[in-house]
Amino acid sequence: MKIITGGVTAAKGFQAAAAAAEIKYKGRTDMALIYSEVPCAAAGTFTTNVVKAAPVKWDQDIVYHHPHAQAVVCNSGIANACTGQEGYGYCRDTAEAAALALDIPADSVLVASTGVIGMQIPMERIKDGVSKMAPLLSGEIEAGTEAAKAIMTTDTVKKEVAVQVEIGGKTVTVGGMCKGSGMIHPNMCTMLGFVTTDAAISKEMLQQALSEDVKDTYNMVSVDGDTSTNDTVLLLANGMAGNPEITKKDEAYETFKEALNYVNTALAKKIAGDGEGATALFEVKIMGAESKEQAVTLSKSVVTSSLTKAAIYGHDANWGRILCAMGYSGAQFDPEKVDLYFESRAGKIKIIENGVSTGYSEEEATKILSEDEVTAIADIKMGDAEATAWGCDLTYDYVKINADYRS
Amino acid sequence: MKIITGGVTAAKGFQAAAAAAEIKYKGRTDMALIYSEVPCAAAGTFTTNVVKAAPVKWDQDIVYHHPHAQAVVCNSGIANACTGQEGYGYCRDTAEAAALALDIPADSVLVASTGVIGMQIPMERIKDGVSKMAPLLSGEIEAGTEAAKAIMTTDTVKKEVAVQVEIGGKTVTVGGMCKGSGMIHPNMCTMLGFVTTDAAISKEMLQQALSEDVKDTYNMVSVDGDTSTNDTVLLLANGMAGNPEITKKDEAYETFKEALNYVNTALAKKIAGDGEGATALFEVKIMGAESKEQAVTLSKSVVTSSLTKAAIYGHDANWGRILCAMGYSGAQFDPEKVDLYFESRAGKIKIIENGVSTGYSEEEATKILSEDEVTAIADIKMGDAEATAWGCDLTYDYVKINADYRS
Repeated sequence: MKIITGGVTAAKGFQAAAAAAEIKYKGRTDMALIYSEVPCAAAGTFTTNVVKAAPVKWDQDIVYHHPHAQAVVCNSGIANACTGQEGYGYCRDTAEAAALALDIPADSVLVASTGVIGMQIPMERIKDGVSKMAPLLSGEIEAGTEAAKAIMTTDTVKKEVAVQVEIGGKTVTVGGMCKGSGMIHPNMCTMLGFVTTDAAISKEMLQQALSEDVKDTYNMVSVDGDTSTNDTVLLLANGMAGNPEITKKDEAYETFKEALNYVNTALAKKIAGDGEGATALFEVKIMGAESKEQAVTLSKSVVTSSLTKAAIYGHDANWGRILCAMGYSGAQFDPEKVDLYFESRAGKIKIIENGVSTGYSEEEATKILSEDEVTAIADIKMGDAEATAWGCDLTYDYVKINADYRS
Repeated sequence: MKIITGGVTAAKGFQAAAAAAEIKYKGRTDMALIYSEVPCAAAGTFTTNVVKAAPVKWDQDIVYHHPHAQAVVCNSGIANACTGQEGYGYCRDTAEAAALALDIPADSVLVASTGVIGMQIPMERIKDGVSKMAPLLSGEIEAGTEAAKAIMTTDTVKKEVAVQVEIGGKTVTVGGMCKGSGMIHPNMCTMLGFVTTDAAISKEMLQQALSEDVKDTYNMVSVDGDTSTNDTVLLLANGMAGNPEITKKDEAYETFKEALNYVNTALAKKIAGDGEGATALFEVKIMGAESKEQAVTLSKSVVTSSLTKAAIYGHDANWGRILCAMGYSGAQFDPEKVDLYFESRAGKIKIIENGVSTGYSEEEATKILSEDEVTAIADIKMGDAEATAWGCDLTYDYVKINADYRS
């Protein structure tokens, strides 16, 4: 596998563009368009929140009931959630505007929104944005980067990644971008993620690969425990790499999944590390679990614990909070068998052994916890299963951002 | 029902004392002793965390396997959690020290600790504290207040309440104190709560009354979603009111439960309102639910949502976050039927009707949300069940307190 620069335009035949449409923000881009030169197989995973934003409902219809998709229109600033029938109508209007501008069917246009809940989107500005973007479409790496910037809300960095693998003698590229910083606790998928590939793969296998992979990637991220109304990951495959079409779970499928997993893991970690107000990416590994499910439950409980997150911000090896969060997770284990380590670029230290303190050096532990990527590793000594979850520290700035967000 | 001043010493025959034992803090009291002149029936509810502090295990043994209890020794500063066999031994040592000083059996002494997890308690100082407190025991109101102050950790105010009811022609008093500010998300019970009563009531009925009542009181409180290792509510009844003993679910039982419910609700709300760093008590009422369970799930999901809590801090009527938190709670409902109101001393305002904004005045909403006790009321129009949960806003100070707590 080769890691390359770029994002959604890295794969053959994919183009992107961005525009400043003044949906809510001024003086920055806030709309993105992704377009494939040929129709794509499309897969998607969506929020499990009972309250689903209008674009989620629109995309579910396209992904579940139509054979192809060819474009994605995304806006930031307003989420088009809790907007009733009027909001759903705007999804159709957006798709129709893009269909007209791109000369493709409206039912092959996916839409996505992110931002404030409860406001209606200004439809005329969305239409203007689509008209501006269509002639700007480009397959250059920079066009993908512009799109990745346009979908940011409270994100502080754009998030994109791309890799290449060889399948059936052909080079297959998988590239993606995502956004997400607050209201991040994906369940079935993350905030907004868009992954494109030139692999030839059946729609069924594409959906299967995505559904399997989000469980280990986006669904293992939590910034604040709040599962959004808009969470959407879309995966478009246009077949332009020319490999023999992947139609079953063979070696080619596994190679494709490896590439997809790399892209999704990298994007998921970028979301966690750029959590609202975060100063550090916080990774939690549970080892020695009886089952994957147990490891997932334990790692997610630790990574979402407000007290643990505040301790990480304070560079404080407050391991009691980690053990406490494991204890209330709902998973059973023997606290008196747990070993716990902290690890970062600055080193690795064993903090507790069989449930009690090793008498470690607090100074050494604080040094390890002062890096911008820190990992807690707990071995519960019950079996061979493991899981990794990603989150971030809890800081003053998280509160500041969210006390002020709408105003 | 008559609300009176006082706490754990309000009921007949109960005495209390406090001492500065320098367990961890300097220049303040950090140990409390509660004593009944005669043996009591004792009931308790305890944390459901798999990681249980040593005093929880000690108290479970006393409450479940012994007929009586007569004293409670509590320290703040160190939680005696994750301390292995050594920590459990210290519970026994503490009970024995109190037994000697009070001339009662060691297996009638309950113990409780709150503070940092993972440190061993300095046993000699605990013993000194017990020796200091025994001769200071007093039935005065002030003695109860001193005890309520001694058990505080990050609490900013002492928490006590007492009421009187008439049962069988006799005045029965129920009084209590509690502490709790962070790591508050009780499951089966709260942080530390101690309730005393002079009611004559069988041990079985006492436990039943407490177990039923914690579900609607302490278990409906969340400061930060972290269920502690030490959560304990103890209820001692010494029978000195002279009422005919309550031995079944009759009218007298219901009257006793009303008094108990008042005390537990008042204490639970005091914990929520004094959440770490909090500037406001945040109450969430769900009405029109199909079942109590559904109402509980929805109200707890809203009261624990970090984004909603940050919005309350910002006095921002960010109703989308409330609907979002209801949506990911796991309970089913129709978002397009929900009505939502905000209420406080400053008034009441309807924010959404049938899932969409009413076009309310933001200025008016902000005024209502600027009080130090604010309520969100959601009517989901499915039935008659309801539930109320209590929490607080999420502030810079929550982060500050918890990033610095151990240092």
